[in-house]
Amino acid sequence: MTRQPSARSDVPAFTVMTVLQAVAAARAEGRDVINLCAGEPGQGAPTAVREAAAYAMSGAIPLGYSETRGIRPLREALASHYRRWYDLDLDPDRICLTTGSSGGFLLAFLAAFDHGDKVAVARPGYPAYVNILRSLGCEVVELDTGAEVRFQPTVELLQRAHAQRPLAGVVLASPANPTGTMIPQEQMRELLAWCHAAGVRVVSDEIYHGVSYTGSTGTCAWSYDDASLVVSSFSKFWGMTGWRLGWLLMPQDLAPRIDALAGNLALCAPVPAQHAAIAGFTEAAYAECEAAVTGFAEARRLVLEALPRLGWTGVAPADGAFYVYAGIANQLGPYADSVAWCAALLAEEDVALTPGVDFDRVHGGEYVRLSLASGPGPVAAAIERILAFQDRLAKDQS
Amino acid sequence: MTRQPSARSDVPAFTVMTVLQAVAAARAEGRDVINLCAGEPGQGAPTAVREAAAYAMSGAIPLGYSETRGIRPLREALASHYRRWYDLDLDPDRICLTTGSSGGFLLAFLAAFDHGDKVAVARPGYPAYVNILRSLGCEVVELDTGAEVRFQPTVELLQRAHAQRPLAGVVLASPANPTGTMIPQEQMRELLAWCHAAGVRVVSDEIYHGVSYTGSTGTCAWSYDDASLVVSSFSKFWGMTGWRLGWLLMPQDLAPRIDALAGNLALCAPVPAQHAAIAGFTEAAYAECEAAVTGFAEARRLVLEALPRLGWTGVAPADGAFYVYAGIANQLGPYADSVAWCAALLAEEDVALTPGVDFDRVHGGEYVRLSLASGPGPVAAAIERILAFQDRLAKDQS
Repeated sequence: MTRQPSARSDVPAFTVMTVLQAVAAARAEGRDVINLCAGEPGQGAPTAVREAAAYAMSGAIPLGYSETRGIRPLREALASHYRRWYDLDLDPDRICLTTGSSGGFLLAFLAAFDHGDKVAVARPGYPAYVNILRSLGCEVVELDTGAEVRFQPTVELLQRAHAQRPLAGVVLASPANPTGTMIPQEQMRELLAWCHAAGVRVVSDEIYHGVSYTGSTGTCAWSYDDASLVVSSFSKFWGMTGWRLGWLLMPQDLAPRIDALAGNLALCAPVPAQHAAIAGFTEAAYAECEAAVTGFAEARRLVLEALPRLGWTGVAPADGAFYVYAGIANQLGPYADSVAWCAALLAEEDVALTPGVDFDRVHGGEYVRLSLASGPGPVAAAIERILAFQDRLAKDQS
Repeated sequence: MTRQPSARSDVPAFTVMTVLQAVAAARAEGRDVINLCAGEPGQGAPTAVREAAAYAMSGAIPLGYSETRGIRPLREALASHYRRWYDLDLDPDRICLTTGSSGGFLLAFLAAFDHGDKVAVARPGYPAYVNILRSLGCEVVELDTGAEVRFQPTVELLQRAHAQRPLAGVVLASPANPTGTMIPQEQMRELLAWCHAAGVRVVSDEIYHGVSYTGSTGTCAWSYDDASLVVSSFSKFWGMTGWRLGWLLMPQDLAPRIDALAGNLALCAPVPAQHAAIAGFTEAAYAECEAAVTGFAEARRLVLEALPRLGWTGVAPADGAFYVYAGIANQLGPYADSVAWCAALLAEEDVALTPGVDFDRVHGGEYVRLSLASGPGPVAAAIERILAFQDRLAKDQS
């Protein structure tokens, strides 16, 4: 008898992986590729965090399992951080450290949703929401959003979806990946109030908080409703992607469930990273992280200024995160979609962008995502190369 | 409308958590508690691993996301390790680094089993197998094992279960938690051959390999069938519990599925730990880890020698891991079960053992698990205290 892979593991591959393989091949040939696919800041962890980690390695700190929710001093430091950024008073026992935001989503979805439950997400959106939810047996309801709603769910969109098939939950992301748009404070309040009244559980992805260009760090869902689940991480603002450390704010009714699930599915978040992350809340660390954001902001300014020359459309200017998501339908030339267009751009001009299809299987063929994470220098150089590529396409067409 | 926690998050709490709270409370009162509940070795990571981690923190190594499967040098070092321990030639691309063995079980179960699939596990066994499988919608079929089969599944037990309700898979664990018994090589071969023929996918938990007292490090399932999933970890032999680093050996047909799942559910295993773990395969590190096992072996000898005096029954001498699982039915005295007995032992003699109910909801009320992980000194002292406790119970009864 032959065993088969499970049906639920039939997860679509990321198109960006093909792009990244082509980048590696081009670099192996000695070509000078500007890679604007990255979903991670280049600067890495703050100095104080790396120093604290090195200290932990000296044997000074036991690195066995921690409490399932994470070490108390880090949860207390996080509570102080919520006072600093959001003027919120958090009970450290409502915080669960997780293995990156990935670990947080898994626990949040398992605790809140059952097999067969319907959960809404915005399209375009971070593909892992859909893929994790489906692998856990949830039915994903995609909310088709465009630049006219700044790629964010509205109460109207939710109402319509809920009327058709009652939703158990919705994932909000602000700033969002791939668009960088943020949900304004008043819209966040409305969304949470509607969800609360309708019995729709909100999972709020706040991992890009602090990486923003509007003067606001982002609105925490708990400012309005602590029955929502907040997922966050040290990966983006603190530049600690590879460390795999994030956290969950747990609604009262779900806290014991998340505790029990985490004790079985994770045991605890990585302990050396937990000890090190405490130093991420020092003034020096905040300053280092904010300096990195200043670099992304400059790169963002360059792209937004170049938009008329690029002829890209459908852009809702990113309020945060480090991406610009743009429509290239007018610029496709002979190419069928953004996948082919990105492959040609890389082959001819050594610039790598992410095709939109990973974020939107319906309209993504006409969009690309450009990452600002490598800062203004590479982004400025890439813009010139893209313009040269597009000029050639235009000439070939005429 | 009120939102409810999901039904699938209704995971039973671990009894040992109550014991550990009582330990903390007793220690806060200044009492000298010997805690033999631990599932982790006390010695921590090898020196070379901690030094390599400290070096990674100097900024010398980029600590962003790694490849989903983990950094290539670590997968190559692991392949060498399989040659050293098992005389096996592994393709490093069949290895996926995971977030502890926990991350490995999650990926293995999702890739191999669908909602509703029946998966067999031995009872007594590590409770997370059951709890993870159930949270993913699998139906757990418990194989009732006792000391007469050394608490391990047999072909006969599997055949019987499979005839009643066809199994999609089985979890094997050798050395096992809580019993420490190992599946002898010939039995492993038979089990894998039967499973292969019957189309039952094997998930082989090999995290205690190397922590053994028989001269064998343990039999790797891939010595007989590389269609099985092997789950392992740096937590036990290498003493790196809190680092959350493990690995999966992926069957050919599941490798792309696991890649895709891991890219969505985990992104990658903790990267500082990945770089550090390479140093776990140096001769100095192997020697440090083997010295720790020598300490567990001495503690094991003390417990096995004391068994006649203790009057404990149903013990299948642990071949590996760092536990002794023992029947205390004859010693319960006035207590209803091992939960009450352990509470009294802790209150009166300041010794903490784990009641068997966490590992076996049917017979566990008559069993306890004693951990050898703290080494011979504490274990010897604990034995005397337990004997004093049991003597008092016997006198009170007579």
